[in-house]
Amino acid sequence: MGANDMKLVVVGAAGRMGQTLIRTVHAMDGVRLHAAIERPGSPFIGRDAGELSGLGPIGVPVTDQPLEAFVEAEGVLDFTAPAGTVEFAGLAAQARIVHVIGTTGCSSDDEAKIRAAARHARIVKSGNMSLGVNLLGVLTEKAARALGSADWDIEILEMHHKHKVDAPSGTALLLGAAAAKGRDIALADHSVRVRDGHTGPRPAGTIGFATLRGGSVIGEHSVILAGEGEQVTLSHSATDRSIFARGAVTAALWARGQKPGFYSMLDVLGLN
Amino acid sequence: MGANDMKLVVVGAAGRMGQTLIRTVHAMDGVRLHAAIERPGSPFIGRDAGELSGLGPIGVPVTDQPLEAFVEAEGVLDFTAPAGTVEFAGLAAQARIVHVIGTTGCSSDDEAKIRAAARHARIVKSGNMSLGVNLLGVLTEKAARALGSADWDIEILEMHHKHKVDAPSGTALLLGAAAAKGRDIALADHSVRVRDGHTGPRPAGTIGFATLRGGSVIGEHSVILAGEGEQVTLSHSATDRSIFARGAVTAALWARGQKPGFYSMLDVLGLN
Amino acid sequence: MGANDMKLVVVGAAGRMGQTLIRTVHAMDGVRLHAAIERPGSPFIGRDAGELSGLGPIGVPVTDQPLEAFVEAEGVLDFTAPAGTVEFAGLAAQARIVHVIGTTGCSSDDEAKIRAAARHARIVKSGNMSLGVNLLGVLTEKAARALGSADWDIEILEMHHKHKVDAPSGTALLLGAAAAKGRDIALADHSVRVRDGHTGPRPAGTIGFATLRGGSVIGEHSVILAGEGEQVTLSHSATDRSIFARGAVTAALWARGQKPGFYSMLDVLGLN
Amino acid sequence: MGANDMKLVVVGAAGRMGQTLIRTVHAMDGVRLHAAIERPGSPFIGRDAGELSGLGPIGVPVTDQPLEAFVEAEGVLDFTAPAGTVEFAGLAAQARIVHVIGTTGCSSDDEAKIRAAARHARIVKSGNMSLGVNLLGVLTEKAARALGSADWDIEILEMHHKHKVDAPSGTALLLGAAAAKGRDIALADHSVRVRDGHTGPRPAGTIGFATLRGGSVIGEHSVILAGEGEQVTLSHSATDRSIFARGAVTAALWARGQKPGFYSMLDVLGLN
Repeated sequence: MGANDMKLVVVGAAGRMGQTLIRTVHAMDGVRLHAAIERPGSPFIGRDAGELSGLGPIGVPVTDQPLEAFVEAEGVLDFTAPAGTVEFAGLAAQARIVHVIGTTGCSSDDEAKIRAAARHARIVKSGNMSLGVNLLGVLTEKAARALGSADWDIEILEMHHKHKVDAPSGTALLLGAAAAKGRDIALADHSVRVRDGHTGPRPAGTIGFATLRGGSVIGEHSVILAGEGEQVTLSHSATDRSIFARGAVTAALWARGQKPGFYSMLDVLGLN
Repeated sequence: MGANDMKLVVVGAAGRMGQTLIRTVHAMDGVRLHAAIERPGSPFIGRDAGELSGLGPIGVPVTDQPLEAFVEAEGVLDFTAPAGTVEFAGLAAQARIVHVIGTTGCSSDDEAKIRAAARHARIVKSGNMSLGVNLLGVLTEKAARALGSADWDIEILEMHHKHKVDAPSGTALLLGAAAAKGRDIALADHSVRVRDGHTGPRPAGTIGFATLRGGSVIGEHSVILAGEGEQVTLSHSATDRSIFARGAVTAALWARGQKPGFYSMLDVLGLN
Repeated sequence: MGANDMKLVVVGAAGRMGQTLIRTVHAMDGVRLHAAIERPGSPFIGRDAGELSGLGPIGVPVTDQPLEAFVEAEGVLDFTAPAGTVEFAGLAAQARIVHVIGTTGCSSDDEAKIRAAARHARIVKSGNMSLGVNLLGVLTEKAARALGSADWDIEILEMHHKHKVDAPSGTALLLGAAAAKGRDIALADHSVRVRDGHTGPRPAGTIGFATLRGGSVIGEHSVILAGEGEQVTLSHSATDRSIFARGAVTAALWARGQKPGFYSMLDVLGLN
Repeated sequence: MGANDMKLVVVGAAGRMGQTLIRTVHAMDGVRLHAAIERPGSPFIGRDAGELSGLGPIGVPVTDQPLEAFVEAEGVLDFTAPAGTVEFAGLAAQARIVHVIGTTGCSSDDEAKIRAAARHARIVKSGNMSLGVNLLGVLTEKAARALGSADWDIEILEMHHKHKVDAPSGTALLLGAAAAKGRDIALADHSVRVRDGHTGPRPAGTIGFATLRGGSVIGEHSVILAGEGEQVTLSHSATDRSIFARGAVTAALWARGQKPGFYSMLDVLGLN
């Protein structure tokens, strides 16, 4: 642990993602766990955050006092729920620190409040904190723009574990949207989500989806651009759920050196 | 051209597959084109078979006299239609030669006649003459039997060019049937051919299909067996339509040394 | 936990693999942890086996009395070292139970002793307990036999994490040996392990190896059979180190119903 | 054939690439063959260019008069040799038309002359005319820049047919150079081209190469960026040698609307 380690607070510390964040902060260089927060009344208040997350004791008890924790910290990692996230953004603004937000489902009203907090906080917010998936989205848009629809067909293939209940995955749709943006078309008007029986020839300019399910696959996504006699394939494979936590820590370290503002993972990757 | 080259007759010589067969026989070692047959009245009768198929003249004119051709030949390559194939099988039996049949769509009555001819002819018949696809079917059955349905999920993925009008491909269904056979289940009762929207968790014991379309892909098939923490994938990729012709010639060379009988590509591959 | 659960003993309980075995037995249906063994003098004697392996307390203290444990148990899971394994095999024979051995590095003398114990014990021994890898070896041999070396080139590709210090992997060599067996050749005389600069055309009948290293990849292996215009690829991907433990438990459950004898994972998979 | 079809001249018409260019121009929309050029004294002068390339007669005889052909044409497709290409560039400048150059091996003196011609001609020059490979190079550089070497390892895998005599392929090295550029390092100082035996852990910041050879594979390239728990893979697969000809025609059509100048395939793809 170095003197210059970035001091991070994990909110929602006792949840599944909170525990992963605590283990990831513990394992990565350049950061250390400053505090672990749960909501007032949680049975985990007072317990050691390391023990909670399977690390063994690390001397950081879970508390329900975020502001107190934030003022001495440099960043907050937050994969909680919209109401909490809006509140934490306000506190991060007061403390003028970094707030990395992986929370999903925020309303436009929530978004507005978070953006207001970004006048004083350094906020990085993204629906998917994986560095690789964010990069893949950018490359997909670029590829779809360069290889025109007259000659190149776009297909998006994903595979997830057998427990997943919906199809295609949110990330597959996000990649489809990136491809559509590269082609200047609306995904909804051009996607082909099912093929079975007599389908007829592939309509030019469409974006096709195909879904595989099985085993314990955490997430595989491929964007295929198929032309006459050649094919370009851009793929991402996740083999560990901790990549989202690692991406959040990477975002925090990057944001530490930035001016207050509202950023995305594309800024972190230097792709904006 | 060697003295021991197997003398082969191509029937349906002027068709697309007939031309491919002629070029393939010309290119492969150990065989040579003895005759090229078209039906009486064909405008191609009398033309040079090499010229017809883009090779330049080879001194073999197309004729409409199969029996005359068969008696001096050692084998017949036949990707025509059921009626012609039944007739050619009879002539091959008379000539006691090899008859390789890639014709599809034979009725059970046609099949019975072909099997009768196999008392005197050496017949190899298969719906797909590719060595690789036939092998993949055998390996799929074996894998599906070894890796039980309680722990291993089977998915079949295929990709073909943008002009293909049906889904999944016949070969994908053939691989699904091989997997079902390995599991001792009926494919029809266990296949999942479409996934979109809220699907719920994957039902155990099912065989899933996914279809990609794009570009000029000749044919890609993968059988995925996905377990907890590991995955086995068996794939075939075709990059040239001539593989079916090459498989037919390989079958002819193999059958030359066999007793009269009815064989499949599995026999040719030594997998029966 | 069911009344018919198979009672298993984990030896080498405090080691990395021992802990994985304990967690796997805990997680899988049809088995339960009967005892956990460490060598006399180990600092872990008396500690709870569940706590040791990150599960929390499960009421099974680590002991140094294997025989006592074996007589009431139905099987032993053993990924220790040759000396210990030989001793455990003798005890398993006395107790007439199942002994699953993942230990590597046994001398021919050790092997002879283990085989002697198999007159009374049901022993399953394999250098790699992954079901998928064992299946892949069998399929590779079969494919290499069916697709002859005149027309089909065999390549073996593997990828592992950046910490791996040798190349190619033991499993890649095992797959190479399976391919060589299918071709009735000696691997040592036909392997091409390096290509760089002016290599000349690929020598027919060779088996090529290629190695990738990077990230945290647990293990990916592909056997490629490349012919004229088509390709067959057989692959295995491991995403969780627990697959070896899961394979061992699967082997124990299978061996429970067998006669005393010496078995391999191929017997477990029904492939012998 | 449309009234607005771009009139193209193929130089080196009787060579293997010349024939492919003639067939490709014939097959693609928006272009037509205006003339076919061979050097004076060629035995093919006067023969029909279509017949020469297997299309059957198309009414365009091969000539040895390039200037005469260029003045009425709009573009030249040129995969010949440096001396010829320099001369054709001068003629294309006189005719103020498009000159697409796939010729390799030009000296810096040749390059200077070609660039001088680009004051009046619209020249597109590239060592690899495949759209997909050029795109892959750009995406590789971008990915290598976004995913830093501390956490992400880069590997480049290629596969080609059994006749290829060198390794790694020129395209693999080009992709390695693109990755190195993205990382601001020199490829020569950071490439690992061979792994065998005891290699030790992978050195951070290196770019690894692996080579597969077999069958009739025209060209497969993958750039793998492997991080902790996730992987990004960017791949290109060529299944038809005509893609280089198609890329050249695409370049000609694009350059038709440009000002005189010296362009690359990246300009054609809109990636500069």
